[in-house]
Amino acid sequence: MGIVVPLEGERGKQNAVATLQALVAEDMENVNDFIRARMASDVPMIPELASHLINSGGKRLRPMLTLASAQLCAYQGADHIKLAATVEFMHTATLLHDDVVDESDLRRGRKTARLLWGNQASVLVGDFLLGRAFKLMVETGSLRALDILSNAAAVIAEGEVMQLAAAKNTATTEDAYLKVIAAKTAALFAAAAEIGAVISGKDGAEAAALESYGRNLGIAFQLIDDALDYSGEKDKLGKNVGDDFREGKITLPIVLAYRRGDEEERAFWQRCLQEGDQREEDLPHALHLLAKHRAIEDTVKRARHYGEMAQDALGIFPDGNIKQALSDLIDFCIERAH
Amino acid sequence: MGIVVPLEGERGKQNAVATLQALVAEDMENVNDFIRARMASDVPMIPELASHLINSGGKRLRPMLTLASAQLCAYQGADHIKLAATVEFMHTATLLHDDVVDESDLRRGRKTARLLWGNQASVLVGDFLLGRAFKLMVETGSLRALDILSNAAAVIAEGEVMQLAAAKNTATTEDAYLKVIAAKTAALFAAAAEIGAVISGKDGAEAAALESYGRNLGIAFQLIDDALDYSGEKDKLGKNVGDDFREGKITLPIVLAYRRGDEEERAFWQRCLQEGDQREEDLPHALHLLAKHRAIEDTVKRARHYGEMAQDALGIFPDGNIKQALSDLIDFCIERAH
Repeated sequence: MGIVVPLEGERGKQNAVATLQALVAEDMENVNDFIRARMASDVPMIPELASHLINSGGKRLRPMLTLASAQLCAYQGADHIKLAATVEFMHTATLLHDDVVDESDLRRGRKTARLLWGNQASVLVGDFLLGRAFKLMVETGSLRALDILSNAAAVIAEGEVMQLAAAKNTATTEDAYLKVIAAKTAALFAAAAEIGAVISGKDGAEAAALESYGRNLGIAFQLIDDALDYSGEKDKLGKNVGDDFREGKITLPIVLAYRRGDEEERAFWQRCLQEGDQREEDLPHALHLLAKHRAIEDTVKRARHYGEMAQDALGIFPDGNIKQALSDLIDFCIERAH
Repeated sequence: MGIVVPLEGERGKQNAVATLQALVAEDMENVNDFIRARMASDVPMIPELASHLINSGGKRLRPMLTLASAQLCAYQGADHIKLAATVEFMHTATLLHDDVVDESDLRRGRKTARLLWGNQASVLVGDFLLGRAFKLMVETGSLRALDILSNAAAVIAEGEVMQLAAAKNTATTEDAYLKVIAAKTAALFAAAAEIGAVISGKDGAEAAALESYGRNLGIAFQLIDDALDYSGEKDKLGKNVGDDFREGKITLPIVLAYRRGDEEERAFWQRCLQEGDQREEDLPHALHLLAKHRAIEDTVKRARHYGEMAQDALGIFPDGNIKQALSDLIDFCIERAH
């Protein structure tokens, strides 16, 4: 049922995440220790619920950005560990609340916390993790990093509300959609990368470059996620193909197919997504329309555009292992679409 | 239907909130300006939803504590304004999430945000306000205040989860219940009062005294809230008498009545609260049992105990208008039970 996306695979980049993981392995061990220690609570439900998600085999992509960025800027201290743990806590809190808002049942191939512990507990444990995240970052005493991360927290939530307000509106423009994902996804990627430079005292060009790298990588990452929702395999996705469709989510593939379609097709998208009136044969028909208008291919193409911007942002750094791994990571994120 | 609680009313203390409001009026104007400015967003739903609650006639008790505390410590700067706005944002975020978790329909006599905008928007706008709260406090650059407030954020959420885990358990002990309200309510009162001293550079005895004042005032305040739920008038409460009962909430009046009752009574509480099996005649019977065991009176009596601790905490400060108003505020909070 999947649409085959033509991508020029490049050998060696398949393992960009593994390479990056190896380069920051020691730091990441420390981050994991911090995460374990700081999600502890006398209230057993908190570590139970939190660890369900935190230990569910996520790639720790966002904290990895903080660690790699600090390493790229030759950081000598220990605060990057706490900040990376902060970033992962913020991300986990967002996922917990997202699953409640989206009424999701599956995440990374496992039942969601809200299904196992309930919506109420998911909301409150999300709040707890946000609180602990802020406590962790305050401990570093870096007011610049605090400023960046607290700003990201508000922007992420703003993006989520934006998405909610635009939900089911098939007339959403590509620009409006980009604004949503820049806020809800890319803001944390950008902040995670930027703070690594900031705590290294490289507050100028380096911080701006890593912020830009993170932001564009985040946009590319989200676009590929959106494409995969219609073209991936269930096992790799950790969720079902077409979940976005069933939830009436307007993502870039839909934005493109809607605008490229005729009146009859637009009526189809409106009925399925806006009015939520879906029948069994609708998902196959949606996939057919997406293929007809090359909506998935072009979503990947758009992602590549942002990937290239992320690539160029790294230009000012001297060559080396870490730079290479960050560069390969961009391609890896895009080639996930295979 | 209300139970008359005997309280020795003291003239003049009826207006303790008004007196305190007058003393910090100029600062509070600035706080309100900040609140208005900082809940702004390009996403119209955010200020709409947030202002529904923020402008709903709450007494601004918690930010008032920060302002009064700063004044008591002769603070000369302007950071208390931002910190007071932070405290109100944190409080509002908690209320938004609470209403979702409790499935409440009324708050301060108005329909709840979740009823008007939905649970999803309430969760996300709560997150947005938390993010803005952190951003605001970071702007002050006071790492001590940041430490206190970020810690409070995690403790509040921890208390909420504790309450959720203990929910409907009629065998909850008084100690366990106190632990919940110390976290979910008193922690923010304590932090709000403490930071006023901290930014004034009075980090020692004064900060400890105001922290203790806030904590004990918060516990007394919550206990009176619990008593009022069974004894207040709907108009003054802004919600219905017996809401806690209908939601199966275990509060101190229930804890006391359960332990003082016989087997048959305990079976009644279990059926109504634990099993959620309620009939029309159950609330009147519950009120009868609460009266029989003096559970409301003794809840108020317990509140008075904490009120006295708050009173003594203020002892180290020189006499003056603000100290008097803070002292009268304790009695006012308790005499609300009239």
